[in-house]
Amino acid sequence: MCRWLAYSGPPIYLEELIVKPSRSLLVQSRFARENYVWDIEGLPDGAFPTNGDGFGIGWYSDRSLPGVYRDLRPAWSDENLLNLAGHLRSHLFMAHLRAAYHGIVQRTNSHPFAYRNWLFQHNGEITDFELIKRELCLRIRPDLFPLIRGTTDSEVAFYLAVSRGLEDDPKGAIEAMIGEIEEVRVAAGIAGPLRFTCALTDGERIYALRYSSDQRSKSLYVNRGRSGMRELLGGAAPDRPAHIVLSEPLDDCSDHWEPIPESSFITVCDGELTIENFQP
Amino acid sequence: MCRWLAYSGPPIYLEELIVKPSRSLLVQSRFARENYVWDIEGLPDGAFPTNGDGFGIGWYSDRSLPGVYRDLRPAWSDENLLNLAGHLRSHLFMAHLRAAYHGIVQRTNSHPFAYRNWLFQHNGEITDFELIKRELCLRIRPDLFPLIRGTTDSEVAFYLAVSRGLEDDPKGAIEAMIGEIEEVRVAAGIAGPLRFTCALTDGERIYALRYSSDQRSKSLYVNRGRSGMRELLGGAAPDRPAHIVLSEPLDDCSDHWEPIPESSFITVCDGELTIENFQP
Amino acid sequence: MCRWLAYSGPPIYLEELIVKPSRSLLVQSRFARENYVWDIEGLPDGAFPTNGDGFGIGWYSDRSLPGVYRDLRPAWSDENLLNLAGHLRSHLFMAHLRAAYHGIVQRTNSHPFAYRNWLFQHNGEITDFELIKRELCLRIRPDLFPLIRGTTDSEVAFYLAVSRGLEDDPKGAIEAMIGEIEEVRVAAGIAGPLRFTCALTDGERIYALRYSSDQRSKSLYVNRGRSGMRELLGGAAPDRPAHIVLSEPLDDCSDHWEPIPESSFITVCDGELTIENFQP
Amino acid sequence: MCRWLAYSGPPIYLEELIVKPSRSLLVQSRFARENYVWDIEGLPDGAFPTNGDGFGIGWYSDRSLPGVYRDLRPAWSDENLLNLAGHLRSHLFMAHLRAAYHGIVQRTNSHPFAYRNWLFQHNGEITDFELIKRELCLRIRPDLFPLIRGTTDSEVAFYLAVSRGLEDDPKGAIEAMIGEIEEVRVAAGIAGPLRFTCALTDGERIYALRYSSDQRSKSLYVNRGRSGMRELLGGAAPDRPAHIVLSEPLDDCSDHWEPIPESSFITVCDGELTIENFQP
Repeated sequence: MCRWLAYSGPPIYLEELIVKPSRSLLVQSRFARENYVWDIEGLPDGAFPTNGDGFGIGWYSDRSLPGVYRDLRPAWSDENLLNLAGHLRSHLFMAHLRAAYHGIVQRTNSHPFAYRNWLFQHNGEITDFELIKRELCLRIRPDLFPLIRGTTDSEVAFYLAVSRGLEDDPKGAIEAMIGEIEEVRVAAGIAGPLRFTCALTDGERIYALRYSSDQRSKSLYVNRGRSGMRELLGGAAPDRPAHIVLSEPLDDCSDHWEPIPESSFITVCDGELTIENFQP
Repeated sequence: MCRWLAYSGPPIYLEELIVKPSRSLLVQSRFARENYVWDIEGLPDGAFPTNGDGFGIGWYSDRSLPGVYRDLRPAWSDENLLNLAGHLRSHLFMAHLRAAYHGIVQRTNSHPFAYRNWLFQHNGEITDFELIKRELCLRIRPDLFPLIRGTTDSEVAFYLAVSRGLEDDPKGAIEAMIGEIEEVRVAAGIAGPLRFTCALTDGERIYALRYSSDQRSKSLYVNRGRSGMRELLGGAAPDRPAHIVLSEPLDDCSDHWEPIPESSFITVCDGELTIENFQP
Repeated sequence: MCRWLAYSGPPIYLEELIVKPSRSLLVQSRFARENYVWDIEGLPDGAFPTNGDGFGIGWYSDRSLPGVYRDLRPAWSDENLLNLAGHLRSHLFMAHLRAAYHGIVQRTNSHPFAYRNWLFQHNGEITDFELIKRELCLRIRPDLFPLIRGTTDSEVAFYLAVSRGLEDDPKGAIEAMIGEIEEVRVAAGIAGPLRFTCALTDGERIYALRYSSDQRSKSLYVNRGRSGMRELLGGAAPDRPAHIVLSEPLDDCSDHWEPIPESSFITVCDGELTIENFQP
Repeated sequence: MCRWLAYSGPPIYLEELIVKPSRSLLVQSRFARENYVWDIEGLPDGAFPTNGDGFGIGWYSDRSLPGVYRDLRPAWSDENLLNLAGHLRSHLFMAHLRAAYHGIVQRTNSHPFAYRNWLFQHNGEITDFELIKRELCLRIRPDLFPLIRGTTDSEVAFYLAVSRGLEDDPKGAIEAMIGEIEEVRVAAGIAGPLRFTCALTDGERIYALRYSSDQRSKSLYVNRGRSGMRELLGGAAPDRPAHIVLSEPLDDCSDHWEPIPESSFITVCDGELTIENFQP
C-alpha cells in the first residue's frame, strides 16, 4: 500500500494538502486508514497502515520541466519536506508516500517518476513482478531502457506506458500498458492480482486510473466541490475550481470526498474532471 | 514509545533475537503491541505502534570497547542491519528502536549511547524536557558536556548518570539521576510524568530500570527460563542460562516472558538475574 | 574549510550561482581553490579542497520565514539540490558547503542555521572549541539553549549573537559575539586561532564578516559590478544591481570578483554594499 | 576512479587496513594518489582524487554467506564504518570506495556486490555504458536479471560473469565476460576505452584482474612480503603469509608494494599468489 495525491487548480502551497489537513499526507505516512484489514486482535492483516518507505513530491512552475524532490526517509520526520511544502506553490503537483514491504528503500524507488515533462506515481502491485520483470523490461523502448534507475514495478510500468505512446495518446498508452502487463502475467501463469491505481500528468492535465484484475482495486477519491475545499483549506482555498485526486480523504468529512468506482479512468483538463470506464 | 532488548548469556548471533522470532525486534519496528491504546475507531490513541525513527545495536566482543551501529532509517528496511545481525555474535548486546514523535531523526539521536565501556538505551519520556534541558545539562560533569552529540532527553540523562558515579555505583548513580530529574521537574513546575524504562551495561553486567512518576511505566519483561529459550531459539538456543531484558515479548507465548512490576531495578550478573524495588 | 555564498538582488533561480558557473558551488564542493596549500608533492597540506560534508540552502520568498533545505550528503551528487536550484527563485538566498574534518556529519550540522527570520552560515573555526563549548553555551540566552540542535561551533556562535541582540543591532551583536568568544578563549588559555568568515541575513539585509585572530582569515569576495554579472549569468543576469558575497569566485575572471580585506564587515542594504573595518 | 582492497590471510581486524595505515582506505577516500593527472595549475585533470560516492565492505566468517555493509555516504565520515572495522575480524575481506562522477549515489550502487557466496568489486569504466546497457543486460542469465538492483556497469558485468560460469571456472568466466563486453562495444561502434581492474572471491580464493582495452589500466598492487606487513601492521601483523591486492599502496614505502603489470590475472589460493597474463 502506498498513498498519493495529485492537485490541479489555482496555485496553492503544497503544505495545504501535505501538512495542514487533519488527515494530511504527513498523517497518512504514519497511519493511513484504507486498504488494510484489522484482524480480531486489533492488529493489521496484510498491508500495514504505515507508509514510511520513502516519499516524493513533483510540481510544475513556469519552468519547462517539473521539479522533483524525493527521499528514502519516512515523510513524517523529514524537515526538508515540511520546509519545502511551505515554500513551494504550484497549480499542479503530486505527492507520494511509499510502502515497500519487500523492496529496496532508496531514492530512485520513490515516486513520482519523471520523464521529460511527465510525472507518474502509483499505488498497487504487480504480483510476482520478479518473474516477469525481464520480459516487461524487454518491451520497453530500447532508448528508454537505460533510464530505468530503480527496482520497482511502478517505474517499469511507467516506461512501458511511455513506450506505448503516452506522450501522444495518454489513455491509449495506459490501456496498452495495462493490457500488456496482463498478457505477460497470463503467459507466465501468475495467478495473483494486478492492482494499479496511478496518476500521470504532462504538466497540464492529470490522468488517473483505478483498476485491478480482481476487482479489489486500491482506493481512489476526488474532492467533491468548492464548499468542501473551503472547509478543508480555509483562507487558502482557491477562488476557482480545483481538483484533488487522491488515495484517501484528507479529513473526516465524507461530504468532502467522492469515492471513485472500480475500473475508472479520470481526466482533469481545463478545470473539468471526467470519469470514464476503463478496460485495458 | 521505543522498543529495546538487552541480552546476556552464551554468545549468539544477534539475528536470533532481532530478526528471527515471530515478534522479533524487526517486526516490532513496524508494529509493536504494548504501550498504546486503541480508540473506538480502531486507530491508535496517543503513542503510535510504529518504531521507525532510527535504531541501533551495541555489542561486546573481545575488544575493550563495545561496537555500535546506529542509523536514522527505520530498522525494518535496513539491509545492513539484517546483514550485521547475521554475522555479529556476542555474549552481551543491546538493540533499540526509536519512536520520536517530535524529535529530530538523526544518527546521534539513536540509541544505544556509548561512553567508554558503557552502553545505555531508553524507552520513555521526560515531559517538557525542553523546559529543563539547560538545567539538566548544567548538572552534567563539565568534561562530559562536550560529549553530548544529539538532542534527546535520553542522552542527557545518561551523562547525568555518568556524572553521578555510574562507573563506581551503577544503582546509586541511576537513583541519583532519576532523583535529580524529579527535583528539577518539580522546581520547574512540570506536571506531566517522567517515565523511564532503560538498560545500561558495562560489558559485564546489565542494569535495567522500570520506573515512572505516575505508576504508568513503559512495559518491561524478562525471559522465563531455558525451556522458553529453546522454543524461541531452536537449535541456536544457548546451552547455559541466558537472560533477555526487553520492552515486549518476542513471541506470542506468555509462558516465555515475565512482566516486570512497576518501580523495579534489575541486575544481570554472573548468569543471575535479580529484581529489586527501586525508589529514587 | 567550508564554502558559501549569499545573494541579494532581483530574483534569480538558485542554479544560476549554485550549478551553472564554471566554478559553481557544485564544482567547489568537489574541489575548491582557496584556503589550502599544496605541498611539494602536489598534495594538499592542511585543509583539503573537498567540501563534501553536507550542504544547505536558505531562501526568502513572500512567506514570513525563509525556506531551508539541508542534507548530510555531498552537494555534488544530490539530485534534489540540482532540482530545487532549478525551481527555486529568490531575491535573497544563501548556500553553504560544509567541510568537517573531525565533526559529525548530520543535517543539523549543515548550514545555514535558521532562527525566526534569520539565517546564518559560517566558514572558519574556533580552535579547541570542545574546551570552551560549555562556557559558550552557558552564555547563550536560556530560552535559546534548547534550540541548539547540532554539535558545531558555528551554531553556538550564532545563538550567542542572537543572545547579544542580533535582531536589534546586528553589527553590535556580531562584535559582541566575537569579543566574547575571544574572551573565553583567552580565559581558557587557547593559543590556536579563531577564524570567522560568516554571513547573516534577516531577509532584507545581508551582513558578512571576514575576521580572524591571526590575520589569516578565510577568503571572502564580492562581485565587481554589472558587466561581470552579465558575463557570469548571461541572459539570466538581473537588470538591476545585485550583490554576491562569497568564499571564492564562481569563474576564472578576476575582473568579476573583488577580494575583501582582513577584518572587514560588509552590509548589503537597499542595493548598496558597504565595507567597514571590523574590530570586536 | 574508485579504490579497493582485498585481503586473504590469518584473521585481522578490518581496521588494520581500512583505518590505521598512513595511507589507509579512509585516507584514500579523501585523497587518493594514483590514476589522475595534475594540470599545470595544480588542479586535478580528469578523474578527481576524491572517492566519496559511497563505500562498502564484505567479509567472511564461519557463516555460509559473506557479510556486507554498504552505504552511500563518504567513508571518511561514517562512524559506523569506523566502529565495524574495529570489531569485525576476518581471514578474507574486501573493501571499496566509490567515485561516481555521473552515476547515482545509492547503496545499491556501492561495491562489493554479492551473489550467493561470491563478492565482486571493481575500479574502472565501460565507456558509453548507457549505449550498450540493454544489450549487456539481455546477455545476463534470465533468472539473474531481477537480481540487478543498482544502475552501475560494474554490477551488470558481475552478473554477466556469473552467467558465463563464474562459479565453475572463474578465470574462464571473467575472460568470457570481458570478451563479451568488448564484442558488444565493437558492435556499437564505441571508441572509448574499457578499463577493468576488479576483484572477486568465493570465500576461499581471491581473483583479481588488471585489464584495459587501451593499455591504460587502473593501478593494481600486491603487498611484497612479510617484513613489509610487519612494518605496516606492527603487532597486529599475522604470523603466517597474508596477501593484500589493492588499488594503491597503504603507506609511502615502495618496498612494501609491488605494482602489477597491465593485462594480469591474479589468483590467491592456499596462501599462494600467482600472476598470469590475461587475454580475453
